[in-house]
Amino acid sequence: MEKEKGLLIVLSGPAGVGKGTVCGALRKEQTNIQYSVSATTRQPRKGEVDGVNYFFKEKEEFEEMIKNQELLEWAEYVGNYYGTPIDYVRQTLDQGDDIILEIEVQGASKVRDRFPEGIFIFLMPPSLVELRNRIVGRGTETEDVIDKRMTVAKEEIEMMKRYDYVVENDEVALAVERIKAIVTAEHCKRERLFEKYKQLVEVQ
Amino acid sequence: MEKEKGLLIVLSGPAGVGKGTVCGALRKEQTNIQYSVSATTRQPRKGEVDGVNYFFKEKEEFEEMIKNQELLEWAEYVGNYYGTPIDYVRQTLDQGDDIILEIEVQGASKVRDRFPEGIFIFLMPPSLVELRNRIVGRGTETEDVIDKRMTVAKEEIEMMKRYDYVVENDEVALAVERIKAIVTAEHCKRERLFEKYKQLVEVQ
Repeated sequence: MEKEKGLLIVLSGPAGVGKGTVCGALRKEQTNIQYSVSATTRQPRKGEVDGVNYFFKEKEEFEEMIKNQELLEWAEYVGNYYGTPIDYVRQTLDQGDDIILEIEVQGASKVRDRFPEGIFIFLMPPSLVELRNRIVGRGTETEDVIDKRMTVAKEEIEMMKRYDYVVENDEVALAVERIKAIVTAEHCKRERLFEKYKQLVEVQ
Repeated sequence: MEKEKGLLIVLSGPAGVGKGTVCGALRKEQTNIQYSVSATTRQPRKGEVDGVNYFFKEKEEFEEMIKNQELLEWAEYVGNYYGTPIDYVRQTLDQGDDIILEIEVQGASKVRDRFPEGIFIFLMPPSLVELRNRIVGRGTETEDVIDKRMTVAKEEIEMMKRYDYVVENDEVALAVERIKAIVTAEHCKRERLFEKYKQLVEVQ
């Protein structure tokens, strides 16, 4: 029987939503999820280990990786490159392990193009959570603050479109529980299991 | 804002798979899931309360319910009728509560026709679990036993087709955790949340 592939899980959302915090909390939990290691051209900070925190690359090496399409997605921030090496992701999935990528929305969109079978989770920003709270009568914001939130919220809602799941980040522990539940549920999806079990009886 | 409807969750699987045991264990957990109350023409047993354990009906009343399509599904066992009153299910969903139905595969198929938006969970029988275990080299069954299991397994795999999820009943506590995860994940589905949040910004 062919080994079942792992799931590619992409955790994204607008800047400042708390992706890093939620992903960090998830890492502390007992799960079988692996974490993607990014490549970067920035200098290692004290204690950072190559291949653990990042794959540290020279600028030329990184540009070679871009050219050879060895990156699932990449971006430039303050003069340094950051990206997700595709090989590491592929190897992990082929081993049958799930892997999570915590990336910006633009990066997530690129990953969706190449891995449409991935599980895309949109971490819902507090602006939307608060907006909802206010509407159900629990908020205390002024009209002015709400109006600004509303503009941002409209953009954020548009971003949601290409995701499979929306996880509210009202509390980090709750967000982590929801992500874990999504991964468990995805492993129980009939379309994922049906062919595997069908093979099982046909092969015999 | 319109109140979000609850989820209709259907837990089914072949006879003897342990639906009742798993559902009973789920009931003991802290969840917000409501449980469907069946209608029946059989006599109440000692301690059984009308509207709690069952809705107890006269034969004529039950046949009237069948005629008026007031049952989501029904069947006759050893001279008594058993069925799922549609009103109770509808009311629960309209209140925004999730409701679980633990029913036979034929009944589940009828429910799927009327509530295609339901979440259909197939509880995987031990025969398939053991079959898989044997193939990965952990089983201890004789060839003869395996052959019989294989025939049954083929039928069971065919049944799976119309379900959204397959939950392995290797251990009751694990099956319960998987069902809870599926319910949590379904509440995070983007298609369920997107329109709600879109309305939120448009209505303002």
